Amino acid sequence: MRNVAIIVSYDGREFNGFQSQPYGRTVQVEIETALQKLTGEDILLIGSGRTDAGVHARGQVCNFHTESSIPAERWAIALNTRLPKDIVVLEAHEVSLDFHSRRSAKRKTYRYSIDLAKFPDVFYRHYAYHHPTPLNVQAMLEGLRLLVGEHDFTSFTSIHSTKPHHIRTIYDVQMRQEGSILHTFITGNGFLYNMVRVIMGTLLWVGQGKLAPSEMTRILQGRKRSLAGPTAMPHALMLWEVEYAELQQSL
Amino acid sequence: MRNVAIIVSYDGREFNGFQSQPYGRTVQVEIETALQKLTGEDILLIGSGRTDAGVHARGQVCNFHTESSIPAERWAIALNTRLPKDIVVLEAHEVSLDFHSRRSAKRKTYRYSIDLAKFPDVFYRHYAYHHPTPLNVQAMLEGLRLLVGEHDFTSFTSIHSTKPHHIRTIYDVQMRQEGSILHTFITGNGFLYNMVRVIMGTLLWVGQGKLAPSEMTRILQGRKRSLAGPTAMPHALMLWEVEYAELQQSL
Repeated sequence: MRNVAIIVSYDGREFNGFQSQPYGRTVQVEIETALQKLTGEDILLIGSGRTDAGVHARGQVCNFHTESSIPAERWAIALNTRLPKDIVVLEAHEVSLDFHSRRSAKRKTYRYSIDLAKFPDVFYRHYAYHHPTPLNVQAMLEGLRLLVGEHDFTSFTSIHSTKPHHIRTIYDVQMRQEGSILHTFITGNGFLYNMVRVIMGTLLWVGQGKLAPSEMTRILQGRKRSLAGPTAMPHALMLWEVEYAELQQSL
Repeated sequence: MRNVAIIVSYDGREFNGFQSQPYGRTVQVEIETALQKLTGEDILLIGSGRTDAGVHARGQVCNFHTESSIPAERWAIALNTRLPKDIVVLEAHEVSLDFHSRRSAKRKTYRYSIDLAKFPDVFYRHYAYHHPTPLNVQAMLEGLRLLVGEHDFTSFTSIHSTKPHHIRTIYDVQMRQEGSILHTFITGNGFLYNMVRVIMGTLLWVGQGKLAPSEMTRILQGRKRSLAGPTAMPHALMLWEVEYAELQQSL
């Protein structure tokens, strides 16, 4: 028995999310199907976390157990020839048997992209949220920085969250503009259901001047979803990177 | 009667090219339909040139004559609300009555993009040609530079070209790498049918070591399509910019 970790990018546009479910294409089922074709085994794929319908991934990490003797460096090319074009396996590594792509994850980074141009960039329309009216980016960054640290993020998760507690740590936040696209990067030890999207929906209120940056702290402390802003659109969100003690990625 | 020039970007993926024709969606028909809805007039749209099926445009320039009194600065927003999402009008300018987006064009720039990564960038798969084996980029640039100047480009156009002569001037060439994507920019006074794609197909031979860079001159001088390489894939080509004496663009 071996344990193989793969780093996967996918264009979320035509998926009903990562995790297998009764309706629509999912990334998990597509990869499990490719693994079945390749090995003949029925393999369960473990992802570092779900991504919602429409959300993209640059560096999702998954692992699976197999009896196959295919060498680690052959998995990516062997899977890519059996996968649809909107999923690409970038790397594969043999890992210790107890590696678990969700439980072993140390840090995760998401990116959220906002197109600030008057008219949308046609080539980025599936990857950015178009916001043509002015945003106070400095105020957004100020508000975002108030979330860094260990907090109870109940206000910033869906009321449908099933987690036993909502304490998470945000390690780092960054905003970078490339042309008309404003990218926000949020790195933490884990993210609750819809957490990045609710943070971004609230930050958009800050950028629009509807909310002072300092209100982010009050919203955190209130621990009530209704205090925060709307859940921002999914198509602008991308799972950027997942980091592990064991896995050295070259992404 | 007024003459309006518009700068248009489009994602060529789901178009059967720019120019109206019996089958498939075309950019021209989509814009003419939006103009009809907006003005009630039957308006002929003149493009700076055709782009083939699958080819993209960042800055295509078109013009049309109209009796409408809509002010120039309102055209872009009024058209965008009536256009499908894969066409975006970026600017509109009132121009002199004799401005003609094809005949008045002074310089045109095309970009051709090659993804050099081992596995394709999933977010660039519709905009770059994936070439995972090594390319000698320095040799390609050397070969490309031999095309600068006024030449007969018969070897580098389709045998189906209907032009009376094939003399064109290339003013400038550039290659720039961004991450794994190698962009080639070619600027000239005009381009023949398939010209950029045949140039790129031939340069790929140079990059693969099948052809010495200096052979580009021999191919030019031979004036025979069969001397050059294959016609490179259309989806990696983008009409980047069209320049005019009259029109000052802010792109």
